[in-house]
Amino acid sequence: MEEKTIEREVIYEGKVFNVEKHVVSLPNGNTSVRELVYHNGAVAIIAFDEKGDLIVVEQYRKAFEQLSIEIPAGKLEAGEDPIDCAGRELKEETGYAAEELKHVFDFYGAPGFCSERVHIYEAVGLTAGERQLDADEFLENQTLSLDRALELIANGTIVDAKTIMAIQHWHIRTLK
Amino acid sequence: MEEKTIEREVIYEGKVFNVEKHVVSLPNGNTSVRELVYHNGAVAIIAFDEKGDLIVVEQYRKAFEQLSIEIPAGKLEAGEDPIDCAGRELKEETGYAAEELKHVFDFYGAPGFCSERVHIYEAVGLTAGERQLDADEFLENQTLSLDRALELIANGTIVDAKTIMAIQHWHIRTLK
Repeated sequence: MEEKTIEREVIYEGKVFNVEKHVVSLPNGNTSVRELVYHNGAVAIIAFDEKGDLIVVEQYRKAFEQLSIEIPAGKLEAGEDPIDCAGRELKEETGYAAEELKHVFDFYGAPGFCSERVHIYEAVGLTAGERQLDADEFLENQTLSLDRALELIANGTIVDAKTIMAIQHWHIRTLK
Repeated sequence: MEEKTIEREVIYEGKVFNVEKHVVSLPNGNTSVRELVYHNGAVAIIAFDEKGDLIVVEQYRKAFEQLSIEIPAGKLEAGEDPIDCAGRELKEETGYAAEELKHVFDFYGAPGFCSERVHIYEAVGLTAGERQLDADEFLENQTLSLDRALELIANGTIVDAKTIMAIQHWHIRTLK
């Protein structure tokens, strides 16, 4: 089923992603074109405050021109270990330091055209501190009870894949 | 928190997505650059066979050069109603026709840079038939029990966001 690249055109080399167009050979011997977005990958962190509520951040998402409530997350630097990135992003966006980060699972959010792999960790043993946002990052910190989180999925307020997955993961644990 | 576009550059106009670069004004008065992928959106379908197993398709994903097990899905045509697209894609990829498609939730898989909104439906009242694949689509049909699906997430075989969400949604229902 493999699609081998016959021709490769680099369309764009950006800061967050590159775009390429590949002519590929198909299993039936025909060729087709694949438009591809190459991204370094990212991490996301499931973390709970002392009350057991989920730690989230609200931020403006230019791609769909809306505020979005999401679990803390960030892009991997080239060659960076995802677990180091997870600790750094949690600290930067929420101020919390974690004693341990447990790998939950990885996912691709747009597998049809995008190489971005997101590594999800659960943070354990939190210590509160000062957050350290990047210069062009504007985030509002919040926490959500499970009932509130489920309500925000049901009413279409939470629309971020990693955050829906994190809330479902949490919900499953409470039901078991 | 809104980021208003001050300057907009179209980088690429493709078949699956367009790429733009925007200079935006930030809440503190500074400006920043946002690299954006614009996509028409997609649908995905949660459907079960007569044994109660999840209907999935396995296909090659060029973006990460691997086979990927995913629930049936497809891109929206411009202006197409997502529910019509869901019925069409289910039929094309699996042969099943659905009596009813119930909206589950929508998500963005890469909210940091991509406008692709995925609409998830659950198909009810299935009738088996012939699948009708596109000329450059190569899919293998499979079904998964819940235990097998959870195992394939845990061992890193299933890495597709919509499929993880669908399996967790299913898991929650069985635990309630």
